[in-house]
Amino acid sequence: MVFLRRLLMLMLTVAASSSLLAEDGYELWMRYRLLPKSKQVPVSQIVCPMPTARHIKQAQTELKMGLEAMLGHSVNVVDKVTKENALLIGTPLTNEWLNELDVDLRPFNEEAFVYFPAVFRGKKVHVIVAQELEGVMYGSFWFLRQLQSGKPLPKKRYYSAPRYKLRLLNHWDNLNRSVERGYAGQSIWDWHKLPEYVDPRITDYARANASIGINGTVLTNVNANAMVLRADYILKTKAIADTLRPYGIKVYLTARFSAPIELGGLKTADPLDPQVRQWWKEKVAEIYGEINDFGGFVVKANSEGQPGPQNYGRSHADGANMIAEALEHHGGILMWRAFVYDDKTPVDRAAQAYSEFKPLDGKFLPNVIVQVKNGPIDFQPREPFSPLFGALQQTPSLMEVQVTKEYLGFATHLAYLGTMWQEALASPTRRLGKQKVLDTLTGIAGVSNIGSDRNWCGSHFDQANWYALGRLAWDPTLGAERVADEWARMTFGPAVAKPVVSMLMRSREAVVNYTGPLGLTHLMATGHHYGPGPWVNNLGRADWNPVYFHRADKDGIGFDRMSAGTLKQYAPGWQEIWGKPSTTPDNLLLWFHHVPWTHRLGSGKTVWEELVSRYTSGVSEVASMQDEWAKLKNKIDPARHSQVTEFLKIQHKEAKWWRDASIAYWQSLNGLPLPNGFAPPEHSLEFYKYLSHPYAPGNTHTG
Amino acid sequence: MVFLRRLLMLMLTVAASSSLLAEDGYELWMRYRLLPKSKQVPVSQIVCPMPTARHIKQAQTELKMGLEAMLGHSVNVVDKVTKENALLIGTPLTNEWLNELDVDLRPFNEEAFVYFPAVFRGKKVHVIVAQELEGVMYGSFWFLRQLQSGKPLPKKRYYSAPRYKLRLLNHWDNLNRSVERGYAGQSIWDWHKLPEYVDPRITDYARANASIGINGTVLTNVNANAMVLRADYILKTKAIADTLRPYGIKVYLTARFSAPIELGGLKTADPLDPQVRQWWKEKVAEIYGEINDFGGFVVKANSEGQPGPQNYGRSHADGANMIAEALEHHGGILMWRAFVYDDKTPVDRAAQAYSEFKPLDGKFLPNVIVQVKNGPIDFQPREPFSPLFGALQQTPSLMEVQVTKEYLGFATHLAYLGTMWQEALASPTRRLGKQKVLDTLTGIAGVSNIGSDRNWCGSHFDQANWYALGRLAWDPTLGAERVADEWARMTFGPAVAKPVVSMLMRSREAVVNYTGPLGLTHLMATGHHYGPGPWVNNLGRADWNPVYFHRADKDGIGFDRMSAGTLKQYAPGWQEIWGKPSTTPDNLLLWFHHVPWTHRLGSGKTVWEELVSRYTSGVSEVASMQDEWAKLKNKIDPARHSQVTEFLKIQHKEAKWWRDASIAYWQSLNGLPLPNGFAPPEHSLEFYKYLSHPYAPGNTHTG
Repeated sequence: MVFLRRLLMLMLTVAASSSLLAEDGYELWMRYRLLPKSKQVPVSQIVCPMPTARHIKQAQTELKMGLEAMLGHSVNVVDKVTKENALLIGTPLTNEWLNELDVDLRPFNEEAFVYFPAVFRGKKVHVIVAQELEGVMYGSFWFLRQLQSGKPLPKKRYYSAPRYKLRLLNHWDNLNRSVERGYAGQSIWDWHKLPEYVDPRITDYARANASIGINGTVLTNVNANAMVLRADYILKTKAIADTLRPYGIKVYLTARFSAPIELGGLKTADPLDPQVRQWWKEKVAEIYGEINDFGGFVVKANSEGQPGPQNYGRSHADGANMIAEALEHHGGILMWRAFVYDDKTPVDRAAQAYSEFKPLDGKFLPNVIVQVKNGPIDFQPREPFSPLFGALQQTPSLMEVQVTKEYLGFATHLAYLGTMWQEALASPTRRLGKQKVLDTLTGIAGVSNIGSDRNWCGSHFDQANWYALGRLAWDPTLGAERVADEWARMTFGPAVAKPVVSMLMRSREAVVNYTGPLGLTHLMATGHHYGPGPWVNNLGRADWNPVYFHRADKDGIGFDRMSAGTLKQYAPGWQEIWGKPSTTPDNLLLWFHHVPWTHRLGSGKTVWEELVSRYTSGVSEVASMQDEWAKLKNKIDPARHSQVTEFLKIQHKEAKWWRDASIAYWQSLNGLPLPNGFAPPEHSLEFYKYLSHPYAPGNTHTG
Repeated sequence: MVFLRRLLMLMLTVAASSSLLAEDGYELWMRYRLLPKSKQVPVSQIVCPMPTARHIKQAQTELKMGLEAMLGHSVNVVDKVTKENALLIGTPLTNEWLNELDVDLRPFNEEAFVYFPAVFRGKKVHVIVAQELEGVMYGSFWFLRQLQSGKPLPKKRYYSAPRYKLRLLNHWDNLNRSVERGYAGQSIWDWHKLPEYVDPRITDYARANASIGINGTVLTNVNANAMVLRADYILKTKAIADTLRPYGIKVYLTARFSAPIELGGLKTADPLDPQVRQWWKEKVAEIYGEINDFGGFVVKANSEGQPGPQNYGRSHADGANMIAEALEHHGGILMWRAFVYDDKTPVDRAAQAYSEFKPLDGKFLPNVIVQVKNGPIDFQPREPFSPLFGALQQTPSLMEVQVTKEYLGFATHLAYLGTMWQEALASPTRRLGKQKVLDTLTGIAGVSNIGSDRNWCGSHFDQANWYALGRLAWDPTLGAERVADEWARMTFGPAVAKPVVSMLMRSREAVVNYTGPLGLTHLMATGHHYGPGPWVNNLGRADWNPVYFHRADKDGIGFDRMSAGTLKQYAPGWQEIWGKPSTTPDNLLLWFHHVPWTHRLGSGKTVWEELVSRYTSGVSEVASMQDEWAKLKNKIDPARHSQVTEFLKIQHKEAKWWRDASIAYWQSLNGLPLPNGFAPPEHSLEFYKYLSHPYAPGNTHTG
């Protein structure tokens, strides 16, 4: 009762206005609510003799806050066990009591943790122990997650270790706080007020990342601005690094290849020029002088107009090695992006990364990691995995996925990307034994969907994608459904997890169907990529135009990647499967093959019939998600329920727009009637072509 | 106890995370907290027989929420008096009980209200009554404010009526959500998701405005974009209008003069062209077809590159009347901005508005209002009032002030603008009897400082400026200090009002002193206007350069507005006072006169000595505010206290930057030594000139 009164008083200091009391999603999945008695696990105290050690402080603060809220009683942090059901946390060095328990930590890496129930001096206790402090923090977040999800605690030793060392967010954030492909407000980095003022929100960002194991963040856009390397900006970056460090998160920046010219006043950025090499060495040393655990750089070079070593007749390896050398003795890494295309329109955009980087395999310094965008064309709703995975034998590679939904409906479409990423990660490479794509990686980098919006991601459901990025980077074998279930339980509560997971699991296929079924890609409107534009054919470079990608005409549709040579980049086993339309799965058919509209699929339908059917089913899947969500009206707080309801309405309207505009356009080419039973497009093709949305968000390319 | 338990349960559904429990300023001044028993006013129930009538619904909802939070017990809305201390609200039409009380409402305008305590059928009651529903809503917010401020309720009848009909916010918000001169995040209008999704935040915006009497809002930037008049954007505007209407707030837009060309496909926007006139008529009718109480337009024409009637050899009156005519029979108004300058560099920018508009007095249609920026140069920290106030005899005028602090330190400097606006409003015009500037106005329009930042205005203290705008537009005679006291009591609590008011009241003078004492203006850096740039002399037009405004050289400093003819635009009484350096107040000396550095002021100091002294005292005032704030550490919640502390640190650093850079520059001209006892600038003039801040916020002019 005293605790309740204290809590009440505390809460009375909180806003009483209705909108503040509303759930607004700010808490993300770290939503600690009083558990029903039947789900409570007794935890009486946190035993933590060095409560202010790095990472331990964050762990015990979070445990105290979370446990008190979920158990409804105070949980103190103490330095020795005085009660039954104490929770012991620490490493053998920070918590000597742990030495009395039989814990063998030798097989663990520094980020792993183990949980077990034990009896300590006659008292039942919970134990979270790790070799290093990071592991204790990760274990503490895991412990909270178990309680929050309504999952029982393991009865035996439970071990967890991250599969990858690099679990990264890539913020495509500009120094003016605009976010390229951002649909959640401004950048959370308020460069103007830094370093003096660090928004407390950055601490919550760090908590959220630590809770899912993300351990690095690239603060700036890959379309990089040299100014972030200026002395005053280094101090701003340091302020962010200082805030993230206690949560085990390293800071990285993007390096503009021409920075030695723009910032250093040199005449060249040639990677073999001694002055240029010296400039990078000094600049890197300057950064490490302020941030001694600085992570390193991401570089986008010779791609989409960005400067790079090819401007000077040098290779990507020359460019990467120059910067990597400067980073090397400070312990920094260089992530060099493989998403490149040269000045000439290639035979096939999808083949370009492999063509450029496969020949360079083995030519990079050891601290260079090639960051490979998945899929090979771009972050389309469905593509095969990039042929570079498994092809690079001597160069570590990082999978770059897009968490922000540039091609999957911006913030308002419900589209869970866990299934998409799982499809790529779990795909066999067909190169070495049972090797899957996930076995070829040293890490995963996700292009952030995080912004200044109150709910962080622009929508409540988009938080699931941030969550999934972290969880799959920790353990890529978890499976999208299990991750969805964890997220749904924490975010909306165990009682509604089943329908929420059902919505999540079918959502991405719905987007594939209403935007580009059967392996179609890159059909969106120009610039902002909002809405359909399959008719666009007037852009400066052939491979910027949707018509380049779908190659549809009177007779047929699809990109013939046999004759483009792209298929040869994959392992022979895949060449066999994808080599013929008849053996290619329907869902990638038009990605690999150009076929007549009348080509018959396994289902007996023609390509045209199947396209129309899938476009239509994409729209009706959204309607079905709307129905499913409507049933949860009284089981979810009104504020979040109503926002999702409104967003689903937008998604349904836009799904129909995609379907109708696409069908109208294909019909204008093939002149075919609609299969029986399908509604015609609501408007004429001219209507859809006429629509313009110059202020759709996220389009900072030219800004 | 039941109520407490209910409240607790409600609050347990709120976040338990530490950052959410923190006060983040979202509530603004509508911060309803449990009052100490001694300050509680007994209110048992709200008597409101038509609780869902427009404005009444908003009034009773707010009263219930506010009273329950402040009194700690439930306050139900009922349709008849059943208890002592009931609160009766309504008009005689919505609440028939009011007819039993002796209320004569005839002298009231539709927005006025009256409060009185009474005895009704043997029971003590509070009464809030008005002629129209708007008045009931304003009275309800007033009632809450009294309780919240710890002020006693009047014992007798208390009448309140707004002085002006037009109490407006002007959002300089662009369709891509950037905000020109915005320092508080993005625009709160999320055009992309409208009309389907209306952020609940817009309702809180409406509540805040209603609570201070603001009754109109211009959604878009005066540097206008024709697209907001496109059909789909009209539906978006309608969605906002529908949300604001219940709170008595009308929606206005900015009209781009060339819209008939850009949107209508016409060849001209000539205001005398019949097709152009027809286009505006149809466009306005289209808007009213969707929004039948649409307020009207603001137009910035022939100023800073904006198109206007002068492009076609027509006058401002021709242009204004064309659009006004289209609005007229729908009841709309046209606010035509007087902040204009033509293509040729004028003798004096400050003289331009008067020169252009005085000759047009009497030539405008009755629904045209000339919107006059104060001061005459721009929104500088100190200028004399615009000579147009009182000069226009037959044309209504609106005072435009800037709530956002373009020239007073962006979001991080504490600068209360109530004192600045009071200085202008209360200034005698010296034209007609005791006429003051405030007597010449039909309304006040404030350029909004509102954005998507959680605390709305970018800083906690900047909320005071939004508050002051509304309160002074309601009653321009209130006085800045009283308004500051109201705000401080509601925002930080009555216990700390005194020191908070003290900080507010001296803050603007501090900014004047560290940026431009003695009447200096327009000394800021180019473009973003962040920081000092008195040396700038390379911009395309003479009157874009700080050197044009200060005219300093080896011998003297100041702009001679005698010979420029500007002084003649003021009434003879002012010409006498401002006509000679000896009778001009020190604080406007260099605005009106060019004087030698050695010119002696009343204080006995030279201009140079006084300048250095004032720059220095500006900086030390900030230090003194820091000390004052530090003393409140345990009296204000930690989250807000610490943000203000950090911002004051930034302000102090930047005040010193302004002082040091300015002094270094003046010394480079006059070669004079610093007066005894004053510290030299920390760095060389070259250092200050070299600084660059290309990503300082708010600079969307070219975007």
